[in-house]
Amino acid sequence: MKFQIDAEDVNSKARATSFFTEHGVVKTPVFMPVGSIGTIKTLSPEDLISSEVQIILANTYHLYLKPGLEILEKAGGLHRFINWSGPILTDSGGFQVYSLDELKKISEEGVEFKSHWDGSSHFFTPHKVVDIQRVIGSDIILVLDQCIPNPSDKTTSRNAHLLTFKWADIARKYFLNLRPLYQFRQYQFAVIQGGIYPDLRKESIDKLIDLDFDGYAIGGLAVGESWEKRNEITEFCTTRMPHQKPKYLMGVGTPVDILNAIERGVDMFDCVIPTRNARNGTLFTRFGKLVIRNADYKSDFQPIDPGCSCYSCRNFSRAYIRHLFNINEVLGLRLATYHNIYFYMNLLKQARQAILDRFFNSFKKQFLEIYSSIESI
Amino acid sequence: MKFQIDAEDVNSKARATSFFTEHGVVKTPVFMPVGSIGTIKTLSPEDLISSEVQIILANTYHLYLKPGLEILEKAGGLHRFINWSGPILTDSGGFQVYSLDELKKISEEGVEFKSHWDGSSHFFTPHKVVDIQRVIGSDIILVLDQCIPNPSDKTTSRNAHLLTFKWADIARKYFLNLRPLYQFRQYQFAVIQGGIYPDLRKESIDKLIDLDFDGYAIGGLAVGESWEKRNEITEFCTTRMPHQKPKYLMGVGTPVDILNAIERGVDMFDCVIPTRNARNGTLFTRFGKLVIRNADYKSDFQPIDPGCSCYSCRNFSRAYIRHLFNINEVLGLRLATYHNIYFYMNLLKQARQAILDRFFNSFKKQFLEIYSSIESI
Repeated sequence: MKFQIDAEDVNSKARATSFFTEHGVVKTPVFMPVGSIGTIKTLSPEDLISSEVQIILANTYHLYLKPGLEILEKAGGLHRFINWSGPILTDSGGFQVYSLDELKKISEEGVEFKSHWDGSSHFFTPHKVVDIQRVIGSDIILVLDQCIPNPSDKTTSRNAHLLTFKWADIARKYFLNLRPLYQFRQYQFAVIQGGIYPDLRKESIDKLIDLDFDGYAIGGLAVGESWEKRNEITEFCTTRMPHQKPKYLMGVGTPVDILNAIERGVDMFDCVIPTRNARNGTLFTRFGKLVIRNADYKSDFQPIDPGCSCYSCRNFSRAYIRHLFNINEVLGLRLATYHNIYFYMNLLKQARQAILDRFFNSFKKQFLEIYSSIESI
Repeated sequence: MKFQIDAEDVNSKARATSFFTEHGVVKTPVFMPVGSIGTIKTLSPEDLISSEVQIILANTYHLYLKPGLEILEKAGGLHRFINWSGPILTDSGGFQVYSLDELKKISEEGVEFKSHWDGSSHFFTPHKVVDIQRVIGSDIILVLDQCIPNPSDKTTSRNAHLLTFKWADIARKYFLNLRPLYQFRQYQFAVIQGGIYPDLRKESIDKLIDLDFDGYAIGGLAVGESWEKRNEITEFCTTRMPHQKPKYLMGVGTPVDILNAIERGVDMFDCVIPTRNARNGTLFTRFGKLVIRNADYKSDFQPIDPGCSCYSCRNFSRAYIRHLFNINEVLGLRLATYHNIYFYMNLLKQARQAILDRFFNSFKKQFLEIYSSIESI
């Protein structure tokens, strides 16, 4: 995958990069909204474009179950099915299966799990997960990995990263011998495991580097470890990950988490926080989070964030959005989601600009000072 | 209210008219989507504009309860609160209270009812309903009327229309002595009652005409009477209603109902059918209704209606919209609602053009021939 470094910070590991897929260039640091089952909940592709979303994430596990591969293949892949012409990254399904708790069984060959829809049994192997993502037709596919809970002891963590490597090896070789199903190229990322143990993370990275993936993802974080531990492991990993390839931190995070990780050299992010919080009525502003159901906003005719120029803020008041939440109206979810996605896109765009303009540290400092002024959750 | 007749059909009572509010001109026949509590469910004002909605209906009963008058007045009225700059008509609340079944008590003075939200008691009088709509700030307000179930005997029907007249008399005099609360004029429509009895309808109309309202609505239909009876009463009323004022048939209806009523001289319509049906997955096409959840559409990559040029049809397939309904995603409701509203707007626009071009009858005939070809519900 063509990749270039546009700027590197001198005071931190922060960097601005670009990578090129056949559905468009992605400029980093980038946040990928989560469109699990073929929709960023409540938003249309037009909304994503107008909020300057560059690339979306979809879930292999979810799409495999619904609508299923037959429909996706007939549609000509996910881009056509959902009418999104920008880049798509799909995760491997590993994390979703891991989240199923009772419903999975892991062996050397793969993961057996039961559908959360109907309880039917399925088996994911490293090959199968490549095949599924080939049918989905995402621009970037991930290898099947083994996720482990936090805390996990060293033996469990080592076994998980070794199995993840074994699967990555199978998946890489298999993928490189496949032709894409549609008229464009796909790229493949590996997932680094190793829990909270730096030496295991190092082993994991060293082994995966040899397989020469198109990019590398840090997996197994954002699963309940401390803030300090996450930062430590993130920085440990980014320092050792290939410099000329995208560095992706999976499942992170809040605005503060993201700035901390950018500072530590991460290029790519995904998280349900902006969309899920929106649906709970938690809205992001420069001044921190705002819980729109609060009685404070009953007669507050300001926009969510007076400094925001998104559609929701240009057209509606806190009082109206609160009213929509109070009567359980879909338009409320939609306006809130649009705003939060716009906020995230804007944050990442500003972070990139600050890196390009060589003042990332002061940008981050200034953002955090204002942001923590009303931090409510 | 300034009103003009743009064209009259020679073979039927169908007519094209225009009336002028301070939020814009309305060209009839017109359909008003129902935005009960300050939102056309799932759609933004931008969606309404792009689907060429001219005027929306909101419910006095609902808005009075939530967000309530204090917030609406502080917001500067409903237009500002919901960010809709076109005309708004509000019903009187009579029908909603009537629909509450157990929760109401009607006297000569007004209607006592309990809120469906919290069971709190409220009392609507003819004055109060004017006051509420003055605070809402709708362009067209309706007088409180007494709705009765179908079937109702003649005595019940006569009493209801006499009480409705009494209230209309009070409300008209009260309204004419009030100044508008905001910087624009409001207009007031009466509601004709009289059940399925032509002589009572005649009495109701004759008495209400003397009060010189800005427009007249036919109430008490679309409550379960037969198709023939509705057409008969509609035509009986439109023939006797003032020719130089808008004629509004409340709560109607399906595309076929609407064309039948246009043919009988009706100018204005409102109904939850396009929006509610959309949320149930029933979509309108030129060929009739399409139930999107049907397995037939699993791998059907055509638009909902291949001849439709709405956002949903230009961008998404039946298979994708079916998928969204299957996984209960809001975007499905939104795309379906947008399509149905667009379909209704387009139907009414075509009907108006046909009247202007003097071929309404053949337009209607042709529409019905194609429409009934796959009518499924």
